[in-house]
Amino acid sequence: MDIMRRIVESERFQTAIIAVIVLNAIVLGLETWPAAMTQAGGVLVVLDRIAIAIFVVEIAMKLAVYRLSFFRSAWNVFDLAIVSITFVPAGEGVSVLRALRILRALRLISVVPSMRRVVQALLRAIPGMGSVVTLLALVFYVAAVMATKLFGAAFPDWFGSMGASFYSLFQIMTLESWSMGIVRPVMEVYPFAWIFFVVFILLTTFAVLNLFIAIIVDSMSQEHAAEEAATRGALGSEHQQIMAELTALRAEVAALARGPGAGPRGD
Amino acid sequence: MDIMRRIVESERFQTAIIAVIVLNAIVLGLETWPAAMTQAGGVLVVLDRIAIAIFVVEIAMKLAVYRLSFFRSAWNVFDLAIVSITFVPAGEGVSVLRALRILRALRLISVVPSMRRVVQALLRAIPGMGSVVTLLALVFYVAAVMATKLFGAAFPDWFGSMGASFYSLFQIMTLESWSMGIVRPVMEVYPFAWIFFVVFILLTTFAVLNLFIAIIVDSMSQEHAAEEAATRGALGSEHQQIMAELTALRAEVAALARGPGAGPRGD
Amino acid sequence: MDIMRRIVESERFQTAIIAVIVLNAIVLGLETWPAAMTQAGGVLVVLDRIAIAIFVVEIAMKLAVYRLSFFRSAWNVFDLAIVSITFVPAGEGVSVLRALRILRALRLISVVPSMRRVVQALLRAIPGMGSVVTLLALVFYVAAVMATKLFGAAFPDWFGSMGASFYSLFQIMTLESWSMGIVRPVMEVYPFAWIFFVVFILLTTFAVLNLFIAIIVDSMSQEHAAEEAATRGALGSEHQQIMAELTALRAEVAALARGPGAGPRGD
Amino acid sequence: MDIMRRIVESERFQTAIIAVIVLNAIVLGLETWPAAMTQAGGVLVVLDRIAIAIFVVEIAMKLAVYRLSFFRSAWNVFDLAIVSITFVPAGEGVSVLRALRILRALRLISVVPSMRRVVQALLRAIPGMGSVVTLLALVFYVAAVMATKLFGAAFPDWFGSMGASFYSLFQIMTLESWSMGIVRPVMEVYPFAWIFFVVFILLTTFAVLNLFIAIIVDSMSQEHAAEEAATRGALGSEHQQIMAELTALRAEVAALARGPGAGPRGD
Repeated sequence: MDIMRRIVESERFQTAIIAVIVLNAIVLGLETWPAAMTQAGGVLVVLDRIAIAIFVVEIAMKLAVYRLSFFRSAWNVFDLAIVSITFVPAGEGVSVLRALRILRALRLISVVPSMRRVVQALLRAIPGMGSVVTLLALVFYVAAVMATKLFGAAFPDWFGSMGASFYSLFQIMTLESWSMGIVRPVMEVYPFAWIFFVVFILLTTFAVLNLFIAIIVDSMSQEHAAEEAATRGALGSEHQQIMAELTALRAEVAALARGPGAGPRGD
Repeated sequence: MDIMRRIVESERFQTAIIAVIVLNAIVLGLETWPAAMTQAGGVLVVLDRIAIAIFVVEIAMKLAVYRLSFFRSAWNVFDLAIVSITFVPAGEGVSVLRALRILRALRLISVVPSMRRVVQALLRAIPGMGSVVTLLALVFYVAAVMATKLFGAAFPDWFGSMGASFYSLFQIMTLESWSMGIVRPVMEVYPFAWIFFVVFILLTTFAVLNLFIAIIVDSMSQEHAAEEAATRGALGSEHQQIMAELTALRAEVAALARGPGAGPRGD
Repeated sequence: MDIMRRIVESERFQTAIIAVIVLNAIVLGLETWPAAMTQAGGVLVVLDRIAIAIFVVEIAMKLAVYRLSFFRSAWNVFDLAIVSITFVPAGEGVSVLRALRILRALRLISVVPSMRRVVQALLRAIPGMGSVVTLLALVFYVAAVMATKLFGAAFPDWFGSMGASFYSLFQIMTLESWSMGIVRPVMEVYPFAWIFFVVFILLTTFAVLNLFIAIIVDSMSQEHAAEEAATRGALGSEHQQIMAELTALRAEVAALARGPGAGPRGD
Repeated sequence: MDIMRRIVESERFQTAIIAVIVLNAIVLGLETWPAAMTQAGGVLVVLDRIAIAIFVVEIAMKLAVYRLSFFRSAWNVFDLAIVSITFVPAGEGVSVLRALRILRALRLISVVPSMRRVVQALLRAIPGMGSVVTLLALVFYVAAVMATKLFGAAFPDWFGSMGASFYSLFQIMTLESWSMGIVRPVMEVYPFAWIFFVVFILLTTFAVLNLFIAIIVDSMSQEHAAEEAATRGALGSEHQQIMAELTALRAEVAALARGPGAGPRGD
């Protein structure tokens, strides 16, 4: 068991897994190239199967080594989920499941430490966004209900159901064809529709902007607090030096006061 | 009266109101789903009426408890306004008023303290934007008058009136289809129209960008001033410690000067 | 002369001019409203003439009071230029000149001090942008020459001349319909055109982003340097206090050294 | 050789080269103007040849002076590459190579020191972007493979090959016509396609935003660290002054302790 742990945690093993992930990603990319498929389709399928086998063995080894603590790392769960997709029994959604196999390339993120750190840094920005995202979700829900009730009958493609409204409002929030594509046609039926949409754009743009600002301010203030703490640290150590000197001085003066020529007290 | 105040301010009451708001929002959302309406339309209408009744009672209780000071909180006025919409006598605009009922879901903001704080933080950014927004409004007014006079006759749909021009200029400011949709067609009649529109885009984009920057700088400098004040505080307290030590030392030296062996003076 | 100066610089005079500017802006706005023109067209024209007369008198008074130093203020030159537009002899461009009269509303910026400060703050951001704008201009020139030579023959509307190319590239930089509207059609004739346009988009977007960042960093570091200078100031004054105390202490110790009981020296 | 070095490094030589670059850029610009070509086409071609000759002589001189250390400066290599383009033997791609001659105008960047500094500042931002760009590339690759497999058969123009998918996904990332132009048509065949595209937009927008923030934070923290270092410097020098004073004081007190009237020790 100890040998297996040393293998799993060795750098060579890691490098080998990275190589398999990259090769597997290239193989899955080549599958989209008709010329490659007609000439070497069988080889590609075999290579893909080998890659899966290696991933299964890798995860099995890790499970054997770490047992239940395997599931404590979110990255391990991520790896397991991505590899498991291959074994989902597919009925109609075969082509979708086949396409999802390329998600295995995302294992690079969990295996390469520097990529892991980038993603963790990105994820760290999310909690600070929580409250604004909740607000944005509320605005979206209210706007979707209103749009469906107001414009659903006349424009079923865009606002016929809650789902359609959500999608159309997302499109409007990204400002894609919001006016020429959606609002001008709607205004031909409901001349005052612009009020609804302009308010929606102003609200969501302002909220997204504040999301954005929250992340900047957060990143900056972390940097900044560190710098400022360094200054305070320097201040503190210099202060201690001065205080030590002053204490020694007082002891000497106190010794003087007890009588010239007398040595300083031992405290 | 005191009992009523205790009820209104109790956490249970708050939680109950939040539950009613969420349920009411779901009911109003379900009304947009034809299948739900045909199967349980009557139930949904009744549930909506019950929710309104609860809101009316809630506000009446708060009015009874707080009297005129009820109106001092902007959130209370917000709640009152949103609930009142239901009772506006509707002539033609029935469907609009029915759609506005979902605004009640926005009461979540005024009832949940964390949401309230987010909105208050967003609103705090507005005063700092005031001057740039005024400037932007002036640029919009001037541009709308010019566009109406210059292009109104040839393009009545886009620039036929001040209102149409305002809307089209807002669309152009968001950069949506500004060139292919609006300016290229206009340039076919007025070849130099691009000067007007490019200047307008540069001016408004630059102004909006500065709005944005003003908010970032504002948020940052608040953070930063706090940090810097902490450093200055640390500096000050350390300074006081050193000064106290020095003062004591001077007193001891002064005592020494008055004669060796003599005790320090009592000041 | 002194009386005139007092009038020109009095607050009442300023307020009156602001009132005239606002009224004139409203009158020019009403001119775009056909109903207002048919009912009170004559009155509006007369009101506009009165406003012009007042502006001319105002500027004449200022010229009489300040003489050549009138031209030292960029705002005065701005006012003079805007009012002069009315008196440009118009041949064909009558309607354009008539539309330019609304620019007088921009005089609000030069007359209201708070607006003036906002615009000056915006203008202050421009020098810091100089170098990146020059680079952007160079990239635009190179791209326009290349686009004209490469695609001019096949797409004369978009890239037929340097002017057309500049305009199309500006549109592409704003990302408006760049792909569906311009690049996909071009790629049907020149399949590798995407290289040119994608590189152009990446370069200009990156440059604009850095323009933007330069302004943020500039605003922030001004704020920040002020804060930091305050900290250093506090540090400096506390340091002086400590040094003064130490100097006094050394003088006292020196006096002690010269002989117990002897008074400190007079320096 | 020493004379040549003095010539190459003289300011006059630099200015002359800048003048030639600007004139050459204007000449190449004029070539896009049919009227100029019919009237003075021959002159323009001759002027271009002269400019090339001057550039070749300039680079030859620099090579003679600096020998292999010429290649140590990336700017020299840049100059050499741009000038070499002219001499690439052209088969079919003649018009492309002729268009690339305008790239010589970019030599302005390598010759004018202030432009050089701007570009170097822009390039300095790139290493900090590295990890997020790698992540973005991975997301693009995975999304391109998925889009090709899922939508390639039904929409060959947009997702028929990896290349087409990359281009379409880049367009979608810039939000250009992503919904009306691409996703709505795709959703008519695959109703759940919005899941793929909305996730892709959210992921790439979030990543680009973080790229952007990384650059801001980086620029800011450089500024800031310098300011903070200045504060710490001031702190340090003031600290040394106080410590020197305290050390002197202790020496004097120690002298006192050895006996009143005795001089301080010579250390």
